[in-house]
Amino acid sequence: MLVVMQQSATADQIDGVCEAIQRLGFKPWPLPGETRTAIGLLGDDSGADWSHIEALPGVANVLLTSKPYRLASRDWKPEKTIVELAPGVRVGGDEVVVIAGPCSVESEAQIVETARAVRAAGATALRGGAFKPRSSPYSFQGLGKQGLEFLALARRETGLPIVTEAMDEAGAELVAEYADCIQLGARNMQNYSLLKFVGRLGKPVLLKRGMAATIADLLLSAEYILSEGNPNVILCERGVRTFDSATRNLFDLTAVPVVQKLSHLPIVADPSHGTGLRDKVTPMARASVAAGADGVMVEVHPTPDQAMSDGAQTLAPAQFTEMMRQLDLIAQAIDRRVARMPEVAAVA
Amino acid sequence: MLVVMQQSATADQIDGVCEAIQRLGFKPWPLPGETRTAIGLLGDDSGADWSHIEALPGVANVLLTSKPYRLASRDWKPEKTIVELAPGVRVGGDEVVVIAGPCSVESEAQIVETARAVRAAGATALRGGAFKPRSSPYSFQGLGKQGLEFLALARRETGLPIVTEAMDEAGAELVAEYADCIQLGARNMQNYSLLKFVGRLGKPVLLKRGMAATIADLLLSAEYILSEGNPNVILCERGVRTFDSATRNLFDLTAVPVVQKLSHLPIVADPSHGTGLRDKVTPMARASVAAGADGVMVEVHPTPDQAMSDGAQTLAPAQFTEMMRQLDLIAQAIDRRVARMPEVAAVA
Amino acid sequence: MLVVMQQSATADQIDGVCEAIQRLGFKPWPLPGETRTAIGLLGDDSGADWSHIEALPGVANVLLTSKPYRLASRDWKPEKTIVELAPGVRVGGDEVVVIAGPCSVESEAQIVETARAVRAAGATALRGGAFKPRSSPYSFQGLGKQGLEFLALARRETGLPIVTEAMDEAGAELVAEYADCIQLGARNMQNYSLLKFVGRLGKPVLLKRGMAATIADLLLSAEYILSEGNPNVILCERGVRTFDSATRNLFDLTAVPVVQKLSHLPIVADPSHGTGLRDKVTPMARASVAAGADGVMVEVHPTPDQAMSDGAQTLAPAQFTEMMRQLDLIAQAIDRRVARMPEVAAVA
Amino acid sequence: MLVVMQQSATADQIDGVCEAIQRLGFKPWPLPGETRTAIGLLGDDSGADWSHIEALPGVANVLLTSKPYRLASRDWKPEKTIVELAPGVRVGGDEVVVIAGPCSVESEAQIVETARAVRAAGATALRGGAFKPRSSPYSFQGLGKQGLEFLALARRETGLPIVTEAMDEAGAELVAEYADCIQLGARNMQNYSLLKFVGRLGKPVLLKRGMAATIADLLLSAEYILSEGNPNVILCERGVRTFDSATRNLFDLTAVPVVQKLSHLPIVADPSHGTGLRDKVTPMARASVAAGADGVMVEVHPTPDQAMSDGAQTLAPAQFTEMMRQLDLIAQAIDRRVARMPEVAAVA
Repeated sequence: MLVVMQQSATADQIDGVCEAIQRLGFKPWPLPGETRTAIGLLGDDSGADWSHIEALPGVANVLLTSKPYRLASRDWKPEKTIVELAPGVRVGGDEVVVIAGPCSVESEAQIVETARAVRAAGATALRGGAFKPRSSPYSFQGLGKQGLEFLALARRETGLPIVTEAMDEAGAELVAEYADCIQLGARNMQNYSLLKFVGRLGKPVLLKRGMAATIADLLLSAEYILSEGNPNVILCERGVRTFDSATRNLFDLTAVPVVQKLSHLPIVADPSHGTGLRDKVTPMARASVAAGADGVMVEVHPTPDQAMSDGAQTLAPAQFTEMMRQLDLIAQAIDRRVARMPEVAAVA
Repeated sequence: MLVVMQQSATADQIDGVCEAIQRLGFKPWPLPGETRTAIGLLGDDSGADWSHIEALPGVANVLLTSKPYRLASRDWKPEKTIVELAPGVRVGGDEVVVIAGPCSVESEAQIVETARAVRAAGATALRGGAFKPRSSPYSFQGLGKQGLEFLALARRETGLPIVTEAMDEAGAELVAEYADCIQLGARNMQNYSLLKFVGRLGKPVLLKRGMAATIADLLLSAEYILSEGNPNVILCERGVRTFDSATRNLFDLTAVPVVQKLSHLPIVADPSHGTGLRDKVTPMARASVAAGADGVMVEVHPTPDQAMSDGAQTLAPAQFTEMMRQLDLIAQAIDRRVARMPEVAAVA
Repeated sequence: MLVVMQQSATADQIDGVCEAIQRLGFKPWPLPGETRTAIGLLGDDSGADWSHIEALPGVANVLLTSKPYRLASRDWKPEKTIVELAPGVRVGGDEVVVIAGPCSVESEAQIVETARAVRAAGATALRGGAFKPRSSPYSFQGLGKQGLEFLALARRETGLPIVTEAMDEAGAELVAEYADCIQLGARNMQNYSLLKFVGRLGKPVLLKRGMAATIADLLLSAEYILSEGNPNVILCERGVRTFDSATRNLFDLTAVPVVQKLSHLPIVADPSHGTGLRDKVTPMARASVAAGADGVMVEVHPTPDQAMSDGAQTLAPAQFTEMMRQLDLIAQAIDRRVARMPEVAAVA
Repeated sequence: MLVVMQQSATADQIDGVCEAIQRLGFKPWPLPGETRTAIGLLGDDSGADWSHIEALPGVANVLLTSKPYRLASRDWKPEKTIVELAPGVRVGGDEVVVIAGPCSVESEAQIVETARAVRAAGATALRGGAFKPRSSPYSFQGLGKQGLEFLALARRETGLPIVTEAMDEAGAELVAEYADCIQLGARNMQNYSLLKFVGRLGKPVLLKRGMAATIADLLLSAEYILSEGNPNVILCERGVRTFDSATRNLFDLTAVPVVQKLSHLPIVADPSHGTGLRDKVTPMARASVAAGADGVMVEVHPTPDQAMSDGAQTLAPAQFTEMMRQLDLIAQAIDRRVARMPEVAAVA
């Protein structure tokens, strides 16, 4: 930490800050400058709340130097984390994993048909919402437990591991029972009680970035899960909210290399939510792989124009197949390859 | 709803949109223009998911005309809602209610001392966090149930009703038992499971605007609570996240008159979180009252420089007393007055 | 400046940073910490470009401690600047100045009628655009020089000094000839060539905050004018761009006390552009005065529904008169008063 | 245009809106709905100012259906525009053009050395600033005319066409004389006087997106240039401003396919400014090509750690050479190729 004093700060005010730092168990280190004094601090400042220092008399501002997350940081674990969704389906290694499926599970037929189509095209995990967070209480809220049962059936039919969202503790327990990876949505990224709860469940977690979350916020939310003893966290960039309504969200693809430098956790990109526009999904999925994402998550529906939610950003199976062809080429261009289902996992 | 077709849209594509509208049970109404066609729709379009229409061939964009909330809307309930926190303490009427107290409950002595100080200065409700949502898992997380007990004690000592945050269902049940109003924080504004849960508890709810929530989002989150049968919702503007780090958040005071036109629900303003800077709290509290807020919520601590959280934005009791003096004058200037505790509620 | 090294930084990398600092003529001051080293720097770091330091091997991040502006800073000139628009019309003193008039000058009759109306209601300066920056080249672009002549006529009729926008150097010369204060609009806040040019003209300048400008950016743009020898700069908060379309801009009223702490320059608020909504102008003008603004700038038109631009945010004269009544009361509540035209300036 | 009336709007208010529409020369078309009336309008509504309609009594909101730009729109010119920077160097066709060079021209040796290095690695245009828009008046402002002379020399040495920024009319005339393409920077994107001026000069223009500009704003600014008769406009995505300081800007790569659908103008991406971080430039340049950008613009300097500006985001020649190798592979993966200098343009 560095406390920068105002130019007009008195010696008493400088002493006051030094004392406040000592009260918290740290050693202050004043740095007199030509026009103002700054006060450094030795040691790790990430554990304490420094906000009151900023309000002490004579203080201009406070600069924190430690990263506030630790378990999520590459400083403490340089080698990359690999999260295994199912035997042979690993996120964070050399292969780029594609997770595909409908926004919502709507029926047994719909999810099984989608699962078969995306598996045939090369996906290695199936997504689909049973519990749906919707802005309006009057929108379709998902099939709940029945949706999970349909997902489990689709897994039996195709071998694809399941990624599906939980919105609360009861739902997370159910998802942990039926699925292979618990998704936490953007709106719950700072639902700390839920983060701790899924940290204790131990299942892999796919954590989506919140609409106004900085990358540091995202890593701090991951830290909540990690600090409960669950190391299996996959991060997901899905766009942030900003001023242009031309796209649903502003897809922040630079988050991919930024996260990969700061953290050992794998990061996947979701161009369906990131753009909100069907014809932008394939170019931005290509861009995601080119930027180095560890995976891509996209929405696919047998008949997108009749989807019960998110139809505008959902690919039809034929579009998804073409996207996969293009992703293969992009992955090869950067010496990676798109993951395929291991033969052993294929349906008997 | 109005579907605007592309200039190059064919007659078949126009028919396709009309059919899609009919499939959803509505009557399409094409409007041929000079350069492009638009298709109107009669009836209330707020209940359905129109997103897939946007992706139909030939569609340029889709404009929704209904407000997606209903119970929160002034269209359906023109008279203002008044929420009673305690006998004689009403939010949403002529009087401006001031809710004050520390960021966190730290000890019995701290909360009782603060309660006495803010009551003496004219506050009519006490705030203080027992469950604290913190960005980092390593920051102080609050005293939990013991914090609620200390708050209840402070109420017995001063008569002030209690407003305190809940972060999950178990916490909400406890808060409902001990306190007078359940606060839902910015990070949980779109935790729909929790919104429904507190909707069923029936207690007054103070719902804070999320960091990237539009005003429509805020009203839709209120709709989740209202639609469970709980009409006692107070909205709270506390700043949104944007690009300038000069203040902790960007305090959107215009939200006050905007909400008051769209909705019958009362709205209070929180200049402590809205600015994050102690010396900005009083001017922005004045501005809040001048803009027409139904209440002001501020952080007060006996010794802000030693507060365990949010010290930088917390007023000392003497500063709060001076703020109350100024708010009285501003309220009178717009023909309102700052609420005072009813005599009957005073401690014997 | 403080350079924070990565935890894994080597001694060679630390030496490399120290050498880079010395090459720029400064003295490095390494601060070894428990987990990482930081390197302080003595002296004023605001003049140099430090960006390349951030890219040196082993550097985690660079924190600047000096404010990059100097002439605009209260550190260097603690007493407030007062800008005189006309004899007796001073911005930055105890009185709150109200600047009012139409978005665009449309005709002689329109501007003279407006000038008389706003003067009668208590305004002490007249605004009105002769050169209009419009997003579309097909929108009304203003009357140009003829508009300036009409403004000069309105000044002769009412005694009100004129504030009007310039968009380029030729326009600024004309505005300087006809008007009392050159307005630079939000879109030109970082048009550095124009800032320097108006700095050399010497006339008072009203500088509007850009749509995505931080407060530091605004003060740096003021610095461009001040550093050319023109001390007469008035800042103007008019809202920034963000994600909610409920209002035209997000009116950042906290900028008022923030600027007043950082700088000696006066700051006025423009609730017309800040909100974009006629019925929000009066409450937010009240809030501006309550927050401590040195002035308020609002759009007034004899028949707003027929205005050629910005009709939605423009007050009718009767609404303006009522607003002035309310501002008087708010100003008194904070021990200020709304400025009135000095008798000597009244029309003979 | 569609005017949505409030639910409580009276028949008189509906008539009032119809009359206001007729006064502007359009035909209103009321659409009575179950809960509210909407009023459509036949014809092209992009030319008029509708803002005052929004403030008429009984109006809830106004939805515009026409795009406000016309010459920039693909509706009016479906085939893609190709801008020729020099014989054989075309932006907007099948080939991806790479524009490279230092942030600022610093000396003859620096720019000639850089030009040779980037040409050897495969760039087909040289960038380098002679006039520098800097936030602070105390930062290096560029070499001015001498910088242009050094650029012209570098072109003679390498055959590379020159792209360089102009900040005002006098500068634009000089740039037009010395260089092949006039760059307008983000801060001047809405400097309408300058847009018109460069529109009249006729030279190719590279127009950078403003920090808070929507894509519609960017296209409207292009419209200013096009409507002066200059069809040679290249758009440039370089990141927008938002809440996360992890990167210098938020690089909005989805703008590439969005612009390509709305407009026939070519669009290039600038990952140097888009990210502000050297080690993010190559992955995001790859992503730009994968997303379909017509070109990539990057900063290269012989010794980035000694650059006078933007050192943190500048590549060294060896890094640029490696980036070019990767871009070749990505371009091939999407059936394009990176442009190379035509042999005829090679230096004798």
